[in-house]
Amino acid sequence: MSLTKQIISGDRRALAQALTLIENDDHSSQHILTDVYRHTGCAHLIGITGIPGVGKSTLINSLAKLMRKSGDKLGLLAIDPSSQFSQGAILGDRIRMKDLLGDEGIFIRSMASRGVLGGLSSTTAAAVDLLDAAGFDRVIVETVGVGQSEVDIASNAQTSIVVLCPGLGDSIQAAKSGILEIADIIVINKSDYPEVNLTKSYLREMIDIGSAAQTSGSETQNIIDDINEKLDTDSSIWEVPIITTVATTGEGIGDLFEQLLAHYEHIKSTGEIIRRRHSRLRAIFESQLRKQLYTKLSQMLSEDYCLRQLEVIMERETDPYTAATNCIKHFETNYIGDED
Amino acid sequence: MSLTKQIISGDRRALAQALTLIENDDHSSQHILTDVYRHTGCAHLIGITGIPGVGKSTLINSLAKLMRKSGDKLGLLAIDPSSQFSQGAILGDRIRMKDLLGDEGIFIRSMASRGVLGGLSSTTAAAVDLLDAAGFDRVIVETVGVGQSEVDIASNAQTSIVVLCPGLGDSIQAAKSGILEIADIIVINKSDYPEVNLTKSYLREMIDIGSAAQTSGSETQNIIDDINEKLDTDSSIWEVPIITTVATTGEGIGDLFEQLLAHYEHIKSTGEIIRRRHSRLRAIFESQLRKQLYTKLSQMLSEDYCLRQLEVIMERETDPYTAATNCIKHFETNYIGDED
Repeated sequence: MSLTKQIISGDRRALAQALTLIENDDHSSQHILTDVYRHTGCAHLIGITGIPGVGKSTLINSLAKLMRKSGDKLGLLAIDPSSQFSQGAILGDRIRMKDLLGDEGIFIRSMASRGVLGGLSSTTAAAVDLLDAAGFDRVIVETVGVGQSEVDIASNAQTSIVVLCPGLGDSIQAAKSGILEIADIIVINKSDYPEVNLTKSYLREMIDIGSAAQTSGSETQNIIDDINEKLDTDSSIWEVPIITTVATTGEGIGDLFEQLLAHYEHIKSTGEIIRRRHSRLRAIFESQLRKQLYTKLSQMLSEDYCLRQLEVIMERETDPYTAATNCIKHFETNYIGDED
Repeated sequence: MSLTKQIISGDRRALAQALTLIENDDHSSQHILTDVYRHTGCAHLIGITGIPGVGKSTLINSLAKLMRKSGDKLGLLAIDPSSQFSQGAILGDRIRMKDLLGDEGIFIRSMASRGVLGGLSSTTAAAVDLLDAAGFDRVIVETVGVGQSEVDIASNAQTSIVVLCPGLGDSIQAAKSGILEIADIIVINKSDYPEVNLTKSYLREMIDIGSAAQTSGSETQNIIDDINEKLDTDSSIWEVPIITTVATTGEGIGDLFEQLLAHYEHIKSTGEIIRRRHSRLRAIFESQLRKQLYTKLSQMLSEDYCLRQLEVIMERETDPYTAATNCIKHFETNYIGDED
């Protein structure tokens, strides 16, 4: 039986093996992804992101237990930028998720990005498709950090949850990093800490300002409007809920799960889910275009050729921009010769 | 006088104008970058990054005042992922840096990344080159967050400073995000808070483990060794100092400045600076290759063609991976026809 068939039939070992191939950017991974693609599109894709130390792992542990009680099969990807320091920290996370071990209805995997091309965002998208094809009802992607890569990854989810702590500093930083813009649900965890009401009202204000800006005819909004028109969807507004939780005691996790289900219903009933699928697939398609094109170029240009270019750049006889243009001309001249 | 000549002669208005062109990925920006390139290579490139809320702006304010006292001209780039929410936060930062306003020897600029291709990392590299060519002795790049993009940006600096706060949670998260790996100097700010010694000894341990791992023949180390061999440099070790500061009172900022100078001397005397320049230029060169190649592809493939591909993908008649391969074949077939 092929690896793809094994994955679709629910073989966990085959799934783990395929994830490793994707993580290592193995040459066989495109073949697997092509094969599983038509089995995707059933799972609810959930992104959970937030600034460090807010208790994401504990929160996910509680949320996952609730999801399992309702009978959902659950795939969980923890996205981990490659780091030689991180082994201990990941072990710590897995300890915080110990309640989930040994449950056949749940699959947990930490993903590092070893392949440079396309990066974390592209590796994550591929891994999500595998879990989707393997029949998990909900796929949660957990990201560490609040940088641009996290925004990129989270914007590929159908429902994005941003987790914060009480304290204005962190909320301001989250706003600054652009992470609030992609939130469908905001969680203030550790809400037994002081300042929770202040944080909540600050966030409410930020989100309202954000929504106002979003509907004021920005370029992005115009594109969204265009797509909505084409897809004939109802663009009725989802008001981002702010949920307070104490993940360690389980307080508020029920609310979170409810809102998660409500958001999924909302995007399905308004057709918003089609727009999100469309934009997710477009991102995958474009990232594949870039990757495959660059691979072709790399095959054409030898390492020696690149090193020679760099030498000339280092000597300041040329600059990296002109050198790149010349490289591409060289590529053009020799392109067809290598094709059939 | 051309814009480039104005920039090199120290015209601040011309510099600001060129930075805007780069930020907007204007078609003229490659021309400017090509022109200024041979005037670069003099500035000390410093990256300052760290998890949110650690007081980076206040720290940079204090550090910049000290640098100005020693007579250095200073360019400062605050890298800001595009966000409609962030205006207020940036204003807050500028208030924390109010001591620096009105000083002709300092140039402050917030950069957002509007161009998608190459992203923040590529925009930042270009902006740094402009400030370098404009004659600033030190160029500081401040990044928000601890994600992969921040690691990418920071790894392009000659001296990377990572700022943390007392508290183990944050340090673990920083380790997890891979940001410690790129640190040349670590700062524990707000060191009047408790837990500072615990944090310090934890970080010391993490860094020592990291160095041990680095010298144990990893693939990256092999590449570094190769380059070192080729460049005939001395790879004598820099022991990452951990400096405690209270940015609000200025405590420890003198130590930080001293270590910054010591590190710059170290990389110059060991030849490490050549390796860093080489790897920075290689990153710029490769990112330009990708960008220019993708631009060519985009010019070839019409928006209609792409939308048709996406329709077929949405209908699951094909998958994004195969569609990309077909697109590139289509590109190949039509490529030469458009060239002279």
